[in-house]
Amino acid sequence: MSGILYVVGIGPGAAEHTTPAALAAIADAQLVVGYRTYIGLVQHLLAGKEVVQTGMTEEIGRARAAVERARDGARVALVSSGDAGVYGMAGLVFEVLRDIGWTRGQSPELRLIPGMTALNSCASRVGAPLVHDFCSISLSDLLTPWPVIEKRITAAAAADFVIGLYNPASGRRTRQIVEAQRILKQHRDGATPVALVKSAYRELENVVLTDIDHFTDYEIGMLTTVLVGNSNTFVFEGYMVTPRGYHNKYTLDGDVLPGQKPARSLRVEGALDSRPREGAE
Amino acid sequence: MSGILYVVGIGPGAAEHTTPAALAAIADAQLVVGYRTYIGLVQHLLAGKEVVQTGMTEEIGRARAAVERARDGARVALVSSGDAGVYGMAGLVFEVLRDIGWTRGQSPELRLIPGMTALNSCASRVGAPLVHDFCSISLSDLLTPWPVIEKRITAAAAADFVIGLYNPASGRRTRQIVEAQRILKQHRDGATPVALVKSAYRELENVVLTDIDHFTDYEIGMLTTVLVGNSNTFVFEGYMVTPRGYHNKYTLDGDVLPGQKPARSLRVEGALDSRPREGAE
Repeated sequence: MSGILYVVGIGPGAAEHTTPAALAAIADAQLVVGYRTYIGLVQHLLAGKEVVQTGMTEEIGRARAAVERARDGARVALVSSGDAGVYGMAGLVFEVLRDIGWTRGQSPELRLIPGMTALNSCASRVGAPLVHDFCSISLSDLLTPWPVIEKRITAAAAADFVIGLYNPASGRRTRQIVEAQRILKQHRDGATPVALVKSAYRELENVVLTDIDHFTDYEIGMLTTVLVGNSNTFVFEGYMVTPRGYHNKYTLDGDVLPGQKPARSLRVEGALDSRPREGAE
Repeated sequence: MSGILYVVGIGPGAAEHTTPAALAAIADAQLVVGYRTYIGLVQHLLAGKEVVQTGMTEEIGRARAAVERARDGARVALVSSGDAGVYGMAGLVFEVLRDIGWTRGQSPELRLIPGMTALNSCASRVGAPLVHDFCSISLSDLLTPWPVIEKRITAAAAADFVIGLYNPASGRRTRQIVEAQRILKQHRDGATPVALVKSAYRELENVVLTDIDHFTDYEIGMLTTVLVGNSNTFVFEGYMVTPRGYHNKYTLDGDVLPGQKPARSLRVEGALDSRPREGAE
């Protein structure tokens, strides 16, 4: 008998931001597996179901339990907040499947249900900080060597990406965010906007709008996502906004600026023969 | 009379991935404004509503129409696919609001409804490529100078981020993706997995799993999202997977490897005195 393993992202946790596909997966499951906090967010959907909830750092046990029960014929939903594919359980599921020698066509059938990750839900609580290129970096060095993380912060800062920091700090892990600030200061103006968004769309939601020089003065924990602006990010009426670049080519009445053309590469002084533009015209 | 401006992301476009919050915003709106293709995706929700749909490159007109009608008292939903805050209309809305001298408390009231962006929906169709740090880069140089884009691709490639490329090519714009491949090859093995996901969860969905050396051999257009793996990304049973790093510290039975401790910084040879670890222990 073939089982089904749903790997489900429920979004930030408020019912109005969980997709119908995620709800349908949980409704169909006989067994729901998840980290204690996430199980709490979907408690109202679990009547009559078997539930396996475990603590942080027990991810391998959860993934293995979900995979093995589904392999043996059960319909199982492995639940993450946000998107299960972003620092979530989806990767570990594949590592366990590989470990047990699973192949496509065997039990369990795999169904990946995407969700809205914290970057998107948190951004919507402060304005529009992610409208241009961005990086997502986890500051947790429990599984990733710190030098790798440090290199990524440096690269993202130097190339003017908007930066979202996941897992910025915990009770024990407090130095990483200070190091991140130090690196950011080397590459960006200290007045660059920074937002701290805690528990977006949940009961204890808290939003702080600050800047690179000051963001470490505020409480930052495991439930905080840190959003760091790029060099064009501005604050307007308490919102954090990264422009897409329309002002490079148009007035806000829609008129085209001198020297520019709609649907053509942006013309930049001193870069008239860059290869992509040649190809584009 | 105060209007409401909803800025709404509907996710990939399939009904089962649009959130209840997005549906409620559209249901409440008297006027729905959007790019023609996106309006088509929510056509079944628009009975009895006024609809303004315009073409690509008419974003400024759309944003201005939505803001002005809402300012004058209407309930307006400005609709994007994916997340309106990721290369979407949310940024432009704030630029227009600033241009007309809007302040908080004035009409319109602003309600930002987040959605699932293409990175997440596309990733779920190929496996779990985004489980570790990633960058999102738009290859469109219509509003961003190409040298800025080139610098970001280089930084992301060198720092071993998973990379999602939005707007990789269009009928006219075909050189950027070739340039991106050239840069990627300088920093990563040519066999690194690459996924091309077109129209995820829509009727003409198409998924190609290939690698850095070969991805430009396939059709890539405006509806394609390109996902480039990092140095640890692997292919397993036709899925693309980036591991989170559990194998650095644990066996897949959950046993801790020699020299490591759960809930402590990962120990790395030759990096015993990195500052974050000192703080963490």
